[in-house]
Amino acid sequence: MNEKAISATVIRRLPRYYRYLSELLENDVERISSKELSDRMNVTASQIRQDFNNFGGFGQQGYGYNVKYLHSEIGKILGLEKTHNVVIVGAGNLGQALAKYQDFPKRGFKIIGIFDIDPKKIGMKIGGVEVKNMADLENFIKDNDVDIAAITLPKEPAPAIAAALAELGVKAIWNFAPTDLHLEKDVIVENVHMLESLMHVSYRLADRERGDEDDDDDDDEDDD
Amino acid sequence: MNEKAISATVIRRLPRYYRYLSELLENDVERISSKELSDRMNVTASQIRQDFNNFGGFGQQGYGYNVKYLHSEIGKILGLEKTHNVVIVGAGNLGQALAKYQDFPKRGFKIIGIFDIDPKKIGMKIGGVEVKNMADLENFIKDNDVDIAAITLPKEPAPAIAAALAELGVKAIWNFAPTDLHLEKDVIVENVHMLESLMHVSYRLADRERGDEDDDDDDDEDDD
Repeated sequence: MNEKAISATVIRRLPRYYRYLSELLENDVERISSKELSDRMNVTASQIRQDFNNFGGFGQQGYGYNVKYLHSEIGKILGLEKTHNVVIVGAGNLGQALAKYQDFPKRGFKIIGIFDIDPKKIGMKIGGVEVKNMADLENFIKDNDVDIAAITLPKEPAPAIAAALAELGVKAIWNFAPTDLHLEKDVIVENVHMLESLMHVSYRLADRERGDEDDDDDDDEDDD
Repeated sequence: MNEKAISATVIRRLPRYYRYLSELLENDVERISSKELSDRMNVTASQIRQDFNNFGGFGQQGYGYNVKYLHSEIGKILGLEKTHNVVIVGAGNLGQALAKYQDFPKRGFKIIGIFDIDPKKIGMKIGGVEVKNMADLENFIKDNDVDIAAITLPKEPAPAIAAALAELGVKAIWNFAPTDLHLEKDVIVENVHMLESLMHVSYRLADRERGDEDDDDDDDEDDD
């Protein structure tokens, strides 16, 4: 499969397709047309067909998509056919929220460790996983095959800890700290910056007031 | 100012520029060249100039940007010259994390109410704001000028509550529930879907394994 030329925007839409297809599967829907999928997802049918054409189409003309097949193919593109081991670094409210998020294990993201420096938190069980001392993080990473580390720490300690995790071989950093991490090129960094997301809301409010919101429908607003 | 033609991708980068400029201001930096800004932000100088040209340039050729002016202009585009009143609906871990996030009030996002149905949470103080009963939400919205409601609820109750908030005149919904909200067109919905973000990480891991990551640098990976 050649995905070299596929735009970041299309890729960003795949998890949303996957989510809808998961729901269809749970409701025992076997086939769906791009028109029906379009109605549910609030995207045009032509956009759906265009997006899927990037991956060879997936469909039988006039016959609709086989939901199970489509779900499984998009799952493969998203790397969801394998289980990912995840550690959470920082057991504050955000770290705890992530640790309890039931959709993660359901989709193969297994939280295998949570770490904090706060003695009051160490030993607590969150979502069935015990909070460990940050001092044990290095050995834990060495002993376990950790794919993804979620960094739910304040801005200040985040870069050094992310660098240490990268050094220890963690392949991807899911960064919630409000700072940019400059790591070696082969470490994947995915940022979730809450303030930037909120600023995007205020941009849209301001833009609305400036009277520019009307023709903004091709924006990526609804699918990231 | 005409921003009609400005792409969503450029808009998505503005909060990041704003964050860097805030840091420069805090460090009393008065002027910066696109080259210096580029080194700090890990974006090319030409990209910075191109981005800023969308808004008329902001700069004096060969003389660098006036940090204070640039910060203020980008702030205006982002609607940050005014204060935004925010309520948080759902005082679970995620709602609590947002309520405690000190960068929000610093940038004019004032958390004026937190709501939950859980009697154990009602009356708790989080980040200085008392958790109120969900039954009081309607009157609270009527009595206060609420710009943004953050929905930190499970999937099931989220759509009905978002619809009620929209009906009551809340202008923007910042949605953390793992579901799409279909509201009237004039209500702004900004989604933060944790699972989709995590799936994007696993996509990138899978893509790396497929050997396709190398030429992916023009992706929006580092700035959303």
